[in-house]
Amino acid sequence: MSDPLKELYTIGVDYGTESGRAVVVRVRDGQEMASAVTPYPHGVIDHQLPTGEDLPADWALQHPDDYLEVLRKAVPEALKLSGVNAEDVVGIGIDFTACTMLPTTQEGTPLCFLPELKSEKHAFVKLWKHHAAQPHADRINETAARMGEKWLPRYGFKISSEWFFAKALQILEEAPEVYEAADRLIEAADWVVWQLTGVETRNTCTAGYKAMYQDGHFPSREYFAALNPEFADVVSEKMLTELSPLGGKAGTLSAQAAQWTGLKEGIAVAVANVDAHVAVPAATVTEPGQMVAIMGTSTCHMLLGDKLKEVPGMCGVVDGGIIPGLYGYEAGQSGVGDIFGWFVKHAVPASYHEQAQVEHVSVHQILEREAAQQKPGEHGLIALDWLNGNRSNLVDANLSGLILGLTLHTRAPDIYRALIEATAYGTRAIIDNFRQHGVPVTELIIAGGLKKNKMLMQIYADVTELPLSIVTSEQGPALGSAIHAAVAAGLYEDIRAAAKVMGRLEKNVYIPNPENVRVYRELYKEYITLHDHFGRGLNNVMKRLKKLSQTEDSEPTEPEEVAHAAPTLA
Amino acid sequence: MSDPLKELYTIGVDYGTESGRAVVVRVRDGQEMASAVTPYPHGVIDHQLPTGEDLPADWALQHPDDYLEVLRKAVPEALKLSGVNAEDVVGIGIDFTACTMLPTTQEGTPLCFLPELKSEKHAFVKLWKHHAAQPHADRINETAARMGEKWLPRYGFKISSEWFFAKALQILEEAPEVYEAADRLIEAADWVVWQLTGVETRNTCTAGYKAMYQDGHFPSREYFAALNPEFADVVSEKMLTELSPLGGKAGTLSAQAAQWTGLKEGIAVAVANVDAHVAVPAATVTEPGQMVAIMGTSTCHMLLGDKLKEVPGMCGVVDGGIIPGLYGYEAGQSGVGDIFGWFVKHAVPASYHEQAQVEHVSVHQILEREAAQQKPGEHGLIALDWLNGNRSNLVDANLSGLILGLTLHTRAPDIYRALIEATAYGTRAIIDNFRQHGVPVTELIIAGGLKKNKMLMQIYADVTELPLSIVTSEQGPALGSAIHAAVAAGLYEDIRAAAKVMGRLEKNVYIPNPENVRVYRELYKEYITLHDHFGRGLNNVMKRLKKLSQTEDSEPTEPEEVAHAAPTLA
Repeated sequence: MSDPLKELYTIGVDYGTESGRAVVVRVRDGQEMASAVTPYPHGVIDHQLPTGEDLPADWALQHPDDYLEVLRKAVPEALKLSGVNAEDVVGIGIDFTACTMLPTTQEGTPLCFLPELKSEKHAFVKLWKHHAAQPHADRINETAARMGEKWLPRYGFKISSEWFFAKALQILEEAPEVYEAADRLIEAADWVVWQLTGVETRNTCTAGYKAMYQDGHFPSREYFAALNPEFADVVSEKMLTELSPLGGKAGTLSAQAAQWTGLKEGIAVAVANVDAHVAVPAATVTEPGQMVAIMGTSTCHMLLGDKLKEVPGMCGVVDGGIIPGLYGYEAGQSGVGDIFGWFVKHAVPASYHEQAQVEHVSVHQILEREAAQQKPGEHGLIALDWLNGNRSNLVDANLSGLILGLTLHTRAPDIYRALIEATAYGTRAIIDNFRQHGVPVTELIIAGGLKKNKMLMQIYADVTELPLSIVTSEQGPALGSAIHAAVAAGLYEDIRAAAKVMGRLEKNVYIPNPENVRVYRELYKEYITLHDHFGRGLNNVMKRLKKLSQTEDSEPTEPEEVAHAAPTLA
Repeated sequence: MSDPLKELYTIGVDYGTESGRAVVVRVRDGQEMASAVTPYPHGVIDHQLPTGEDLPADWALQHPDDYLEVLRKAVPEALKLSGVNAEDVVGIGIDFTACTMLPTTQEGTPLCFLPELKSEKHAFVKLWKHHAAQPHADRINETAARMGEKWLPRYGFKISSEWFFAKALQILEEAPEVYEAADRLIEAADWVVWQLTGVETRNTCTAGYKAMYQDGHFPSREYFAALNPEFADVVSEKMLTELSPLGGKAGTLSAQAAQWTGLKEGIAVAVANVDAHVAVPAATVTEPGQMVAIMGTSTCHMLLGDKLKEVPGMCGVVDGGIIPGLYGYEAGQSGVGDIFGWFVKHAVPASYHEQAQVEHVSVHQILEREAAQQKPGEHGLIALDWLNGNRSNLVDANLSGLILGLTLHTRAPDIYRALIEATAYGTRAIIDNFRQHGVPVTELIIAGGLKKNKMLMQIYADVTELPLSIVTSEQGPALGSAIHAAVAAGLYEDIRAAAKVMGRLEKNVYIPNPENVRVYRELYKEYITLHDHFGRGLNNVMKRLKKLSQTEDSEPTEPEEVAHAAPTLA
């Protein structure tokens, strides 16, 4: 640090699905001084536009001004709460959901800000969970497979409808005038950095994970032309092709942005990043073999490796996509906390809810307490954790959940524990898959809300046979963005150095219990047998049932690609 | 009838697990005039003897005087309630749980009535669900298989610990002095008839279904000697070898029994029978191809055939075991209503219970109403109905339940419907198994408590592709016993003639819906694929899980033979 006697700070801003959160962080040690949240005034726009136009099913938009509102409100509020002097804030970094993208003019004005386009839905921000581009994603996949595109295996052979070019192609084909008017198709993350600095950048992370940037280039003109002749020049005409590495400095804070935020003009603004990915340095993780599992409603697995391997069923691998100089691998489980939440809401009898009320604790805590008294295997159950499909390693949204071993003696805590174990087996399957394809996994680091569940954590340690370290920050992504900002401000040599000092990790909190490991090895074998039987085509009953259910059901059904969705913390 | 102008009546007494029920029935048309229930004063003796001695696990005894109490109380009470004159009652018949057996003296005095044996547990009645003779049953099966005993395939290759010789062998080996003191080992059913008439008989039904009587004889002396040399002469020394056919007259009511019951001395007493089996004529069922499903917590299937076939996985086939002159086939599902009850109690959230309270209906009714709005296949689920093991066709208590197709959108009515469908598939599998082995099934007749559930009935019609007829009597077994009594009294030529007039059946109440049949054929295929995969050894995960659960669980576990148990209505 330049002056060890003077305390310096950076600000990280984490843009989620419903709100943005700003955190003031001390550069010397990563101490979080204060934070503030600003809900987006327009929220998720999925029923009608602000001007009243109805939206079709599966649409999910946002209003770009909401992102600026976070800069105008959450940043100054966090600063005020922290008691830190704006003079001592030396940088700002942001992270975002992804792929969340929008069309803008050459100057970066969102097309939906233009009076003539304010009622045109394609002029708005398409949020990560906008699922209406599935037909476009299908063609993207089919065409890539047919043309033998080399980047396809880097994404486990499947591109999600949530990703960049599916959304861009939907704009072209459904609103050619909007496509025409767009000088830029840009990630919202990069757009906010542009607003902060006045300089357009494109970050390595979203380009790699969401826009198929591999081996130094986006897919070829020929490939895009095969999708649609009008789409041939999407990269050269609509996108910045020079990428900015993570932890780099995108520019300095503009006068305008200084006014919004109350920060000093000219301080460093870091290159943008994705929420899940930026949480990795917040966990002090910067070395090959370290896997971060961000466990919430779903789980994202971020893994660093020093070699490029094409791992079937992973979500993606990107050179420098998490930490410059290493390959960033990504995998995910599409249902984790969601499954436990579903169970508590829809399959737990009243007595547990009543007990929870009496004790002023959650139903989860009651179930956990009872389930924690069991030994592994005692409940006699095994489950497949596919109630929201399978993202990795099978990449199949049409798989579904299974519970086996039920008897008249089965009780709610038994099933609760079996579902938790099933998600742990799912994580182990992902770890084993990476290892089998030459990417070592030597450490498991847990971030996200589920880290608070002690029984669950011990089960994960016992099932994966890895010691678990726990990220102690409650604001992993925002802290990560603040770390990036410190690097961009030149206060650390690189992310690795900054993460070591500013990241928050408690090491080896849960250690595998050898007795439990012995039993879980048996149970994991059973899980894998069922996993392969139902997941790899020996019995496609789940898909047939889903198809039949969609035929027989008069209600519109879920978009199929939920399980292919890119992980996001949103 | 002898005098068509005079109304005549018979009485049927149904001995259940907890109580006995007497019904007064009009011979002319089977009208049930009145009924009365007497709970057994000693109930099920499974913790300690009346004299205070503790019982080991898995024991279930009864006190023989409780059966006489039913004669002393329920019979006169029913008679009084009916307003019928005892002079007009021409016969009495009884049915019982089975195998429920006891040791007696030559005169029929239960050994537990003897002062010197009143504290000896083996001197009491062993109730059908006494499960402590499993080691003896295991040796009975192993020895029979080794010696190639011809009767073994008649019981699906498996004798239950609940049956007669397992219980007898347990007495010999654990209490040789009781075995020595017993001049008779007798079914409680036959013992009660003995008390009514003063004449010892042995009925065809229990001899066939519970004591391996086949082709005119019990198993051989050599076979019993192989089990234990002291057991060689069990048949000739301890049992009446001449059997009495069903519907036959065992004797006439003794002066003593007339005094107990308030009935006229000298009226006809029918040969005893088993509760499930005697319910068949009460359903007017007397012809080959007719199957009666008695559906309660579990389901018993009674099927008549005119040829002897050895059907793998059935519970048993007995010549004249249900109706003289026909083969009586028996199969069963060990969990049906029990499964729905388990679900409602342990896996349905509070909101359904609250709604039921508001509407003053049962939770079952709420779930049924919601589930009935679905089309087949709409919920996307399939289940295996083995939560209490599988009695037929797999005869395996160590199988367990499975639910497949779960998603975050699955709700309680979906699972409720899937569980009902699973039991319907189980019934269809039993029907198909009989057909595949040469025993036709042309009609399905439903008795028991579940007949009230309309959605369930329609699902059974759609899945089995058979029209369902419904037994309208609420007291099927007691009515059946009254029918037997009318035959024994000589008022009808045979059971067939009596059943036609006195049985209570509403024909073709539920007709298969062709649209539903189409979908259920698909789903039944899926069920059978899973059934064979997990039930026939392709993946024995259920057994491994059960074993592991028993290793890891410190609690004593269920007796393994529950699913091998003979069906009983108790």
